[in-house]
Amino acid sequence: MSTLLSGIAASNGIAIAKAYRLIEPELKVEKNSIENVADETARFRAAVDMSKTDLQHIREKAAEDLGEDKAAIFDAHMLVISDPELLGPIEDKITSENVNAEFALKETADMFITMFEQMDNEYMKERAADIRDVTKRLLAHLLGVQIPNPSMIAEEVIVISEDLTPSDTAQLNRQYVKGFTTDIGGRTSHSAIMARSMEIPAVVGTKEATKTIQNGDIVIVDGLNGQVHINPTPEIIEQYKKEAQAYEAQKAEWAKLVNEQTVSKDGHHVELVANIGTPKDLEGVINNGGEGVGLYRTEFLYMGREQLPTEEEQFEAYKAVLEGLKGKPVVVRTLDIGGDKELPYLNLPKEMNPFLGYRAIRLCLDQQEIFRTQLRALLRASQYGDLKIMFPMIATLGEFRQAKAILEEEKQQLLAKGVTVAEGIEVGIMVEIPSTAVMADTFAKEVDFFSIGTNDLIQYTMAADRMNERVSYLYQPYNPAILRLVKMVIDAAHNEGKWAGMCGEMAGDETAIPVLLGLGLDEFSMSATSILRARSLISKLSKEEMEALALSVLNLETNDDVKAAVEAAVSKA
Amino acid sequence: MSTLLSGIAASNGIAIAKAYRLIEPELKVEKNSIENVADETARFRAAVDMSKTDLQHIREKAAEDLGEDKAAIFDAHMLVISDPELLGPIEDKITSENVNAEFALKETADMFITMFEQMDNEYMKERAADIRDVTKRLLAHLLGVQIPNPSMIAEEVIVISEDLTPSDTAQLNRQYVKGFTTDIGGRTSHSAIMARSMEIPAVVGTKEATKTIQNGDIVIVDGLNGQVHINPTPEIIEQYKKEAQAYEAQKAEWAKLVNEQTVSKDGHHVELVANIGTPKDLEGVINNGGEGVGLYRTEFLYMGREQLPTEEEQFEAYKAVLEGLKGKPVVVRTLDIGGDKELPYLNLPKEMNPFLGYRAIRLCLDQQEIFRTQLRALLRASQYGDLKIMFPMIATLGEFRQAKAILEEEKQQLLAKGVTVAEGIEVGIMVEIPSTAVMADTFAKEVDFFSIGTNDLIQYTMAADRMNERVSYLYQPYNPAILRLVKMVIDAAHNEGKWAGMCGEMAGDETAIPVLLGLGLDEFSMSATSILRARSLISKLSKEEMEALALSVLNLETNDDVKAAVEAAVSKA
Repeated sequence: MSTLLSGIAASNGIAIAKAYRLIEPELKVEKNSIENVADETARFRAAVDMSKTDLQHIREKAAEDLGEDKAAIFDAHMLVISDPELLGPIEDKITSENVNAEFALKETADMFITMFEQMDNEYMKERAADIRDVTKRLLAHLLGVQIPNPSMIAEEVIVISEDLTPSDTAQLNRQYVKGFTTDIGGRTSHSAIMARSMEIPAVVGTKEATKTIQNGDIVIVDGLNGQVHINPTPEIIEQYKKEAQAYEAQKAEWAKLVNEQTVSKDGHHVELVANIGTPKDLEGVINNGGEGVGLYRTEFLYMGREQLPTEEEQFEAYKAVLEGLKGKPVVVRTLDIGGDKELPYLNLPKEMNPFLGYRAIRLCLDQQEIFRTQLRALLRASQYGDLKIMFPMIATLGEFRQAKAILEEEKQQLLAKGVTVAEGIEVGIMVEIPSTAVMADTFAKEVDFFSIGTNDLIQYTMAADRMNERVSYLYQPYNPAILRLVKMVIDAAHNEGKWAGMCGEMAGDETAIPVLLGLGLDEFSMSATSILRARSLISKLSKEEMEALALSVLNLETNDDVKAAVEAAVSKA
Repeated sequence: MSTLLSGIAASNGIAIAKAYRLIEPELKVEKNSIENVADETARFRAAVDMSKTDLQHIREKAAEDLGEDKAAIFDAHMLVISDPELLGPIEDKITSENVNAEFALKETADMFITMFEQMDNEYMKERAADIRDVTKRLLAHLLGVQIPNPSMIAEEVIVISEDLTPSDTAQLNRQYVKGFTTDIGGRTSHSAIMARSMEIPAVVGTKEATKTIQNGDIVIVDGLNGQVHINPTPEIIEQYKKEAQAYEAQKAEWAKLVNEQTVSKDGHHVELVANIGTPKDLEGVINNGGEGVGLYRTEFLYMGREQLPTEEEQFEAYKAVLEGLKGKPVVVRTLDIGGDKELPYLNLPKEMNPFLGYRAIRLCLDQQEIFRTQLRALLRASQYGDLKIMFPMIATLGEFRQAKAILEEEKQQLLAKGVTVAEGIEVGIMVEIPSTAVMADTFAKEVDFFSIGTNDLIQYTMAADRMNERVSYLYQPYNPAILRLVKMVIDAAHNEGKWAGMCGEMAGDETAIPVLLGLGLDEFSMSATSILRARSLISKLSKEEMEALALSVLNLETNDDVKAAVEAAVSKA
């Protein structure tokens, strides 16, 4: 029977494929008495062998797709699963207590995990994590439950999950994952941002995708309209194939703009650049006619690994991006970790309100070695292209001054050692905290540029967590309060002869673009896949008319009022 | 040996008394085999008897100090501790498994708690909470550990605790608690606010009060300078007795202003009103010359109980406050629950960022029966004084319109039933979300007044959780960003002929007051104990001079710049 789910259109396009449930199974262990110890021990050993085979496959696949460094984690798992210090006590327990293998495994492993975790030693804590992972795998084999493993996907699928974390998405193989749908999340959740960056259709926030969709169901992800069809009728499939074709045709039309500049109907030029997460995203930027990178999120370098990336690893990544862009501007955002993005190996304390907590520049100014390592890598890479550096979560002028002074110190030390550093690297800030927007005039005297981060700016200005569905009605990008703050920032920049960009989701939003053009935004940074559509839109708009529109909407009362006014104006244009 | 701790001066004054540690003990249960079942059972029954005696005493004390309704919770505890359905299985377990009473109690109680909690039934969930409380008390007796019980304090003490929750503070007896000091918290934490409202000296955020101070130590709490002396020398005690006298003398000087109006040196009149939490606070308002109540926090009506307060209970409280103020204005804030203020019986979901979540008006517009009950109680009480109603956490005009429409509906229904409702009740909003400050001009057309809630406005504007010590450096009341937003709000109100007040901590702050006077703030609402000092300060300032000061500081760069400029200007004044 065909079923329809509605959600939030998170990434454009249409995909049709079989469902792949990426869901952690519940592994429930009961304590049972067993009759035949030898059989139970044999069953345990079989599970060990199967797990070893799994791990070997996964390790090979990971080395191939993700590189040797990320594959190394599975070597640690192989050591654990071959360790007689762990396996011995489990088999002893089965024998001496006549208990089932699951129970013996769980009790023994928990004991080791607790012991290692209580040690005040980073290395031992990592061993606890390894034991936990291996135990999960062994238990799954004993219980006959399948553990999903996204890196092993080898056919075209639609991924179904509750949510996708950055590390989940990092493991997805772009060749086979044709689309995804999640229970939770909104247009600005990480899963949505990743989908756009990977250029795969996605519908998020369906509330019940994982409840409704089974492995192997045929699923249509309609990322244009936010709909998910489960086991659709042949007629629906036919219709969607046509829509997919129409969308491809539209994309082909836009593709003609790939080597064009971005110019409004009345000849005003703006820059359309891309948000990226890894050097792998460059291909998409170039294919979509990006005029540079407006936001390089460096967090991904720090994720899905067991310790901080070295200066050398970072240098290679930054160099790859700068060289790949061949002299086009690349705005690199320094580490923005904390908030909803955790790095387990940093052992950050749990916070009551992580979005209002110790994150990004706050952490970098406090744990300066992390920050200085990144800055050195950036400075060393600067000679390979047009690097601009930007600090996230700046709330006060004092923070900017301190961050810039640290950058200057590192630069002087490199120069003293004879290292080449580019001249005149622009240093700017994200404007994503209300205080900084309100004080933009004083910041503009000291920064080289602003980049407005609307995802956070909106959530702080409205005091509403953008990940919290109960207050998602307050995520209002067109609220005149937001537009007034955006205007303050752009005006402040221009008064001091600086440029202002935007790297939040709003920069690629079709309703926001006319207003932003009218307010004088210089640089729009968005998902690479949105660039050509935006270029097409801007080419049909008159800057002068949009200026009048922008001024008028600043005096409207609500988000909806603004949306209606923009849509009316653009449909006439 | 005399020891000195430094913390944050949270409530003025000096107190010297014995320490009383208000700290939940750790109740660690081990499993042991026992030799004599009869002895163990007798030990368990003795613990039951002692707990019953405790509960009887506490119940009597609570009825006396807090009223019958709050004492009723202990009746439920008495039922649990006499219930053979609970006690039987525990004794059986001791007998059949030869285990110690602590273990038998814990296992049995946990089983019942889990069972009741899993039921989808409010009543049963409350039973789980009762069992948890009773188990804690029984365990404490079995383990020979003392559970602190603030309502039983019967001598003068300084309370020492990690933090004080609103429900802890509600149980403190003002007669005996002479001061307190906590490990965590800042000037705007609830414990600090409560201390000022109770007019007892307090030093918060000492980091190690609970580690350093033992029961019975002699402690000096210096709430003027943020210092705590432990077992001070006779010389230090002598010196502090003198300082306490000097402070009393200063207070006596201020007390002469108790019946005066608040007028600047050049004849400009402002209103100094008080923040209160319960009708009990009225005495302090009147004794300190408050010209009314600028913020009645109604949350306390909802706390420390097992279900929502009825309309009748609320009506009585509101009526008591309105009558107590004898026609002076009383601004009542509707329910501001959520965030860090939880009501267990509402079963609110855990949120990742509660300060950016489902709280205050967001909850009230969603769970309208709670809101409507409160509004009816307020409307019915309105004839007993000068009631003004204010909605918290308003982020958009749409929310205000909806809240006001609900109020109007309830009013019409009461009038239709022949209930008397005062004419022309003013309806305003808290301005504590940046969007609302930025849009104050449009709000000013529809509200009757603004009251700026600086505690939240600062934390959202700076994107820094004011309870999180790692980012507390960003709690900057004098940051020009905050002052500019305050100016926007005041100007917007005056342009529409409305008044603007402030009910955050900043309104009583000696550095902020000169600037706020200069910006034209009409109403300053603060802890009652700060009113006379503020009146004295304002009487020495010229409004005209402060206007020039205010305009100049708006263009400064940092919080510290502003602080220095104000202090320089005021010392000359």
